[in-house]
This record gives sequence, structure tokens and C-alpha cells, in this order.
Amino acid sequence: MNYKMIGYIMGQILKIVALAMLLPIIVGFIYGESHVVTSFGVPFLITIAVAIIFTIKKPKDNSIFSMEGFVSVAASWIAMSAIGALPFVISGEIPNYVNALFETVSGFTTTGSTILADVEKMSRSCLFWRAFTHWLGGMGVLMFVLAIMSSNDSRTMHMMRAECAGPKVGRLVSKSSFSARILYGIYIALTVSEVIMLLIGGMPLYDSIIHACSSAGTGGFSIYSDSIAHYNSVYIEMVIAVFIILFGVNFNLYYYMMIKKFSLAYKNEEVRTYFGVIIGATLLITLNVMKVYHSFGEAIRHAFFMTASTITSTGFATADTAQWPVFSQTLMLLLMFVGACAGSTGGGMKVSRIMILVKSGIKELKYITNPRAVATVKIDGKPVEKDVIRGTTSYFIIFMMLLAVSFLLISLDKFSIEESLSAVITCMNNIGFGVGRFGSAGNFSELSSFSKIVLCFDMLLGRLEIYPLIMLFASRKR
Amino acid sequence: MNYKMIGYIMGQILKIVALAMLLPIIVGFIYGESHVVTSFGVPFLITIAVAIIFTIKKPKDNSIFSMEGFVSVAASWIAMSAIGALPFVISGEIPNYVNALFETVSGFTTTGSTILADVEKMSRSCLFWRAFTHWLGGMGVLMFVLAIMSSNDSRTMHMMRAECAGPKVGRLVSKSSFSARILYGIYIALTVSEVIMLLIGGMPLYDSIIHACSSAGTGGFSIYSDSIAHYNSVYIEMVIAVFIILFGVNFNLYYYMMIKKFSLAYKNEEVRTYFGVIIGATLLITLNVMKVYHSFGEAIRHAFFMTASTITSTGFATADTAQWPVFSQTLMLLLMFVGACAGSTGGGMKVSRIMILVKSGIKELKYITNPRAVATVKIDGKPVEKDVIRGTTSYFIIFMMLLAVSFLLISLDKFSIEESLSAVITCMNNIGFGVGRFGSAGNFSELSSFSKIVLCFDMLLGRLEIYPLIMLFASRKR
Repeated sequence: MNYKMIGYIMGQILKIVALAMLLPIIVGFIYGESHVVTSFGVPFLITIAVAIIFTIKKPKDNSIFSMEGFVSVAASWIAMSAIGALPFVISGEIPNYVNALFETVSGFTTTGSTILADVEKMSRSCLFWRAFTHWLGGMGVLMFVLAIMSSNDSRTMHMMRAECAGPKVGRLVSKSSFSARILYGIYIALTVSEVIMLLIGGMPLYDSIIHACSSAGTGGFSIYSDSIAHYNSVYIEMVIAVFIILFGVNFNLYYYMMIKKFSLAYKNEEVRTYFGVIIGATLLITLNVMKVYHSFGEAIRHAFFMTASTITSTGFATADTAQWPVFSQTLMLLLMFVGACAGSTGGGMKVSRIMILVKSGIKELKYITNPRAVATVKIDGKPVEKDVIRGTTSYFIIFMMLLAVSFLLISLDKFSIEESLSAVITCMNNIGFGVGRFGSAGNFSELSSFSKIVLCFDMLLGRLEIYPLIMLFASRKR
Repeated sequence: MNYKMIGYIMGQILKIVALAMLLPIIVGFIYGESHVVTSFGVPFLITIAVAIIFTIKKPKDNSIFSMEGFVSVAASWIAMSAIGALPFVISGEIPNYVNALFETVSGFTTTGSTILADVEKMSRSCLFWRAFTHWLGGMGVLMFVLAIMSSNDSRTMHMMRAECAGPKVGRLVSKSSFSARILYGIYIALTVSEVIMLLIGGMPLYDSIIHACSSAGTGGFSIYSDSIAHYNSVYIEMVIAVFIILFGVNFNLYYYMMIKKFSLAYKNEEVRTYFGVIIGATLLITLNVMKVYHSFGEAIRHAFFMTASTITSTGFATADTAQWPVFSQTLMLLLMFVGACAGSTGGGMKVSRIMILVKSGIKELKYITNPRAVATVKIDGKPVEKDVIRGTTSYFIIFMMLLAVSFLLISLDKFSIEESLSAVITCMNNIGFGVGRFGSAGNFSELSSFSKIVLCFDMLLGRLEIYPLIMLFASRKR
């Protein structure tokens, strides 16, 4: 394994993280928060120093294969979480390091689970940093490196795969750095559009930027304990719901639309299934929560927002789902596994994986009832390669195995079975809220440090889709 | 499809069920319960009449393939559950037909979940019938038919597969009728041994027969609300625990021991894993429940019994697990999925399936970290065929999909998320108790009729391992 190149990539990634830390310093200056000089200044200096040491000399042997890509991404995500937690500790706003780490991992992985009981007490610079980790983690930091790297090395494709979500990853264009630039371009354009739309709705500029960053990464951190419900505005809720749904769509689709290949965009089976599931779930939940809200309008408003927030793995809230009937809560738990589209910033198993699993299940049933019938799993009208099917079923099995182990470890804590299980489900799928004490009105502060560290791993496993982390820990053998 | 032959097989199966109904009539006469004349006599006459009509003429075309085998087994299990529920209704002891059906399906599928709040009120004949459905369902009724059938048709192998559990089914000997006879011989011998061991422990004969039948099928129906805890005897608990563990072992093993091929028996990886899991889980639960029982002896006594009862899918209880720490309850929930060995009377996914899933997961991880390494999934030192791996992963995916759908349907009822989920898990894995209101001290009577029917399907899906039922409903298309 090319360790020098792994270090070099990590250095590049940390450089971006260091530069990102300058933004909350600016925010701090604007709002007169003098603590930013130390709370963000010190971590900035540490990070940039480490980054420079790692990148001062580009290794002569710059060959990278998928192994190096995966390992450097996993190591970088752990490093940037460890460093990103420092401002919270130094500023004294989250004095406990494990809590700060949980909050930062939750930020970068765009989970949005918080250990803060009273988020309003936080300084503006720290709140900005919290939301900005969502933005950075949503599209990925390595992706950012690729976007700004001058290298036209086609081998960097191996690396994109490590941060990109879904059963298979293709490039939009032949050069991966150009692909990354297109993706980040779309990402920035959508984020800015959301800021503007929120401003039009009367949301203050600061709040708009925070919630747009948080939406873009489908993260879910807000600056109010009652999340989006705080604004009590149908307009704002609808803008956010629509934008998180858009951020949950495969970004390739926007590229196809940019280059006017509308038929390619329209035919995409995953996206159509995604919209179908959103509509179906919204209707079912609306009917089910009618008895809670006593009005169809209120019911569909909350059902639509919470469905969008759950399936895209955002985790914003306008309603306390703990008050909902169990059917709706169960449906939301199942939606968490479905997740958003592959190649989006959303979490979960991804709609296309679920489609492959369901279709291969149906294929097996057809095969059992009629072994002579030739059944193939098709997506977008084309047969799915056997390797992709095998990879997807393996992913599901490994995911469920890790979920079972985490569930058992969390059950050592003092929570009920459904709370423990929901904490693991919400973290592994990068959603943000579970049920009970971890519901949309609760927080994760009561967990033991051990449980928090287990959940940190789960969030990273979910965001990086398991394999990079496994490789990081298994790679030492060779 | 050869419908005449399906009818013929169903007729043979119903004949056995009819004859089995004569046993509770004898029990009724012994204990002076005159209601048995109508409550069991009428269903007996109906069943025997139907059976005779179906079997009066053996079809000329007696060719049967796996399709016919699976469909006739699924149809027979539904028919025998529908008929087997009649005595409870006619005797007035379970006046509601849906409740009686739930109890009977729970019996035949060896689940052991009950809707009875006060089992002590039941007549001796009905309690015997309840336990005997476990015994009959444990090894399978079709298997009984095969055992007594004079046919030396080797094609009946197709049919064995429909009732036998596990990822693949092989014959012990070349003739399937002879295999079935060996299996039933072992089954009867073990059951009689348990009756004798329980009598030695001072349990009355009636109770011994009931609990031996219930153990043999790894069912779990008892004649006391507090189940085995009623006897408060360490000896009885240990006898039952050891026997249910033995009934959860692949029966082929006993055959190998009979023919003195001890090395074949010893080498069996599934059985060794099964014992390993029992020992491991017992130790973990013992340590965890020490704080509840304040004595190591008490803790290990209950931990061992409940672990055995859960992994073998029996569902007998000596402790109210709702009082246990959440870690132990979670471990038990996970053990429910593991289940007993293939080719035993136990339920769950089966140890060998879990082994194949875990090993193929590990293989995939090895492949990802080192694509050049050749990794194969091995059981008993031999590579597992690709078809078996694909079949097992598909089974797991379909199982989880059906579990998710059932969970959603049960969540329409008035129970908590963990109660609804545990009800589905316990029924699909044929265990008998879940958590909360469905825990070892509770019962299933509060469920709506709709939920009960969903759970009846789940129990049948679990016992017949999904495919026969799917074929029954899908086969009409052709």
C-alpha cells in the first residue's frame, strides 16, 4: 500500500478542513465573539500545520488504487472529526470531548443527532461551524479536493467511489476532477438558491445560511431546540421540504438536465421510485395522524415535512413524532432504511439498493415457483450486473450484522429496547432522530460515553458505506 | 400442475390429523370430560370424511415435483389449522374462532404463543390437543405420511423438502419413506425418554406427556400460566432444557450416531456452533442478570433455561424476562433470529443459515480489502455451493422484507413499537414470547383479529420457511 500517497491525500483533505475553519472565525468577528481567536484559531493552526507537513512533498509514486482511496478517506474522516471537535471544547460550549466528538461526527456524517439540550445557548460561530460540517460532509471533502486538484489523473476515480454513496458509482465525464467540479457547482447553486428562497420567506440571513447548509448536506442541525417548527411558517417548511427532497436526488440528474438530456433524467427509475415513496408515505401518514391534528391541512403539512425529513435522512422536525400513532412511527423507522437516492447527499441504504434487493427477492420467488422462467433484475430497463446484485445483497447483510452488534452494545446502556434500536438505526442511516427519548424532540446527551463512541462509528459506517472503515482497520494485516 | 395428486396428498395428511383427534377423545374419557364426544367427535368426522373423499382413488398420474409438494404442504397446513381450531370453539373453551385459529396455528407451527390468559381453566382434553399439535407440527405431518406410506417412490424427496427446515435438505438414505421412518423413530424415542425423565423428577404422567410433546416440537405450550416455573424444580428445568436443546439438533446427527459414524456427528460445524452460541449467550446473560437474582446459582439457572428456550424457539419460561436488563432482552431478541439447527424441530433462521450469511459477509469484506485473494465460504471444511449461498441470502432478504411488512401491519394495532416488533419476530421465528405485553408472562389475547390473522400467516411463513405459502398463492397464475 502506498502510505506516502495516503498521507498526501489526507493532508489535502485537512487543508480544506483548516480553510473551512476560517469561516466561523469571520462569523465570530461579525457578531463580536472574541473567543473565536482561540477556539477556532488554535485548531486552525494545528490542522494547517499537519496538512502542510503531509503535503509539502508530493510522493514520486503517485499511484493510487481503490484501497488507498478508501483508507485515506476513512482516516481523513476520523482525523477531521477529531480536530473539528476542538472548537467546541476550547470555547467551553461543549466541555466534554466525547460529546464534542459526537456532535462533530454527527455533523460531518450529516446525521444531525445532537447532544445539546439547549442549542440556543451556543455562540453564533459554533452554530455556524456545526451547520457547515453538514455542508462539507454532505458532498464530501475528498470530492472538494478532487474538484480543485489540477491533476487530470483518471485514476482518481478510485477515490471518488469512497465518498460517493450508492451501489455503483459512475463518472459524469471522463475526467474525475471535472466530474467533481460539476457536482460541487450544482451543490453550491442549489445551496445559494435555498438561501435566497428562505430570505424571501422572511428568515434572517444568518438563519437562512445555517438551514441551507444543513439542508444541503441533508444533515438536520438547526439553531433552535424545536427545529423548523420554531418559525411556524408553512412557506419556510415547504421551501425546506422541497430543497431537502432535491438534495436527496441523484446529482447526475441535474447534470443531465444541464446538458439538456431530459429523457435520461425523466427515465431514471430510482428517482421516480423515490418520489413515489415520498407521495405514498405522506398520504399514509396523513391519514394516520388526522386524529392528532384534527384537520387535513395540518396533518398533510406535518406528514409531508416529516416524510421528506426522514427519507432524505435530514432530521429537521416540525412535529414531535413521539405523539404520533405507532403506525406512523413504524413507517418512519422503515423509511430510514430506504434513504435517499444514490449519488445524492442523503443517507440510508439508498433507494436503488432497496430496489435491487426487492427486485432480486421477487426474482428468487419467481425462480422458486417456476425454475424454467428466466428472470433478471432490471433497473432503468437494463439488466443489473450480477456483481452489483451480489455486492448489494452482501452490503445489506453486513449492514444488518453491524446493526445487530451495535444494538447489542447500546443495549448495555440504560434505555428501552425501542430507544436503543432506534438510536442505532438513526445513526447508521444518518437520519438524526429516533423514537422515545431520541425522538425529534429529544437529544442524545444521556447516553454513556461508550454508547456515544459506538454511535460515532455507526454514523461513520453509514456515511462512508461501511467498506472504507473496515479497510482502514483490516489493512494493517498486509 | 397435478391438482389431483395435490388433493390426494392433502387427503393423506388430513387422515393423520383426523386420527390424531382420537387421542384427546381418549384423554377426555379417562378424565370424564363428556364434551369430547361433540367437541372432538364432530371435527374428527368432518376431517375423516374429507380425507376419504380426497384419497378414495389414487390418481393414475402420480408424478409430483417440488411445486406439487410445496403447494400440498401449504394447503394442508392451512386446512389442518382451520379444522384443528374447531374443538376449541365447539367445546366453548375458546369461543372466538379467530382466537382458536391463532392458538391452533401457534400449536402446529410450534410457536407456542397463546391467547389464553387463564390456561388452567381449560379441560384436560383440550390442553392435550394443544400440546399434541406441537408434537405433530414439530416433525411435520407430511413427514408422518411419508413414514407410513408404502410407496418407494424416490420422487417423494421433493415433498420432504417442503416441511424440512434449513438451507438444504438431504436424505439420510436413498428411500425418502425410509428416511422419514428413521426420523420419526428418533423423534418418538426422544419424546418417550423425556416423559420417563420427567416422571422420575416427580412430575405427574399427564403433565409429563404434555411437556414432552411440547418440548419435542420445540413449541412451548404449557398447562400453567407460569409455565415451567410452576414446578419450581431445578431437576425438571434441567431435564426440559437439555431435551429442547437435543430436539434443536439436526436429527441426521442421531442417525449418524445410531449407525456408529461418530466422527461425522462430531465434525458437524453447525451443531458445534449451536452449542457454542448457547454457552456464550448463557454466560453473557448470567453476568447481566446477576443483579436481578443476587446469586450466581439462580442467575445461571434462569439464564441457561431461557437461552435454551429462546434459541430452540420453544418458548417455555422460568423467568419473567420483562424484569431482566435490556441487554439480556436484546440478546434474546437476536437469538430468536438465530434459531436451532437445520433438520431439527426448532425454528428461527437456523444456525447454518446464519453461518452462511456471516461467512459470506466476511468473504465479501475479504474480497473488498483484497480482490485478488480467493475466498470461499466453507461449512464442515467443504465449500458451500454458490446456489446455496444465493438461496440463503435471498431467503434472508425475503424474510426481512416480510418482517418489515408484518411489522407495519401490526403497528396499526394499539401496541408500542417494541411490542409490535417483538410480536412479529417471535411469530415469524416460531418462538412464543416477545417483550412487554407479549413477554414470557403475557399473552396475545389483546391483539385485534386483523393482527392475529397477520401473525397466523407469519407463524406459517416461519414454520414452512416462506416458499410453500408463496407458491400456494402464486401458483394459480399458471
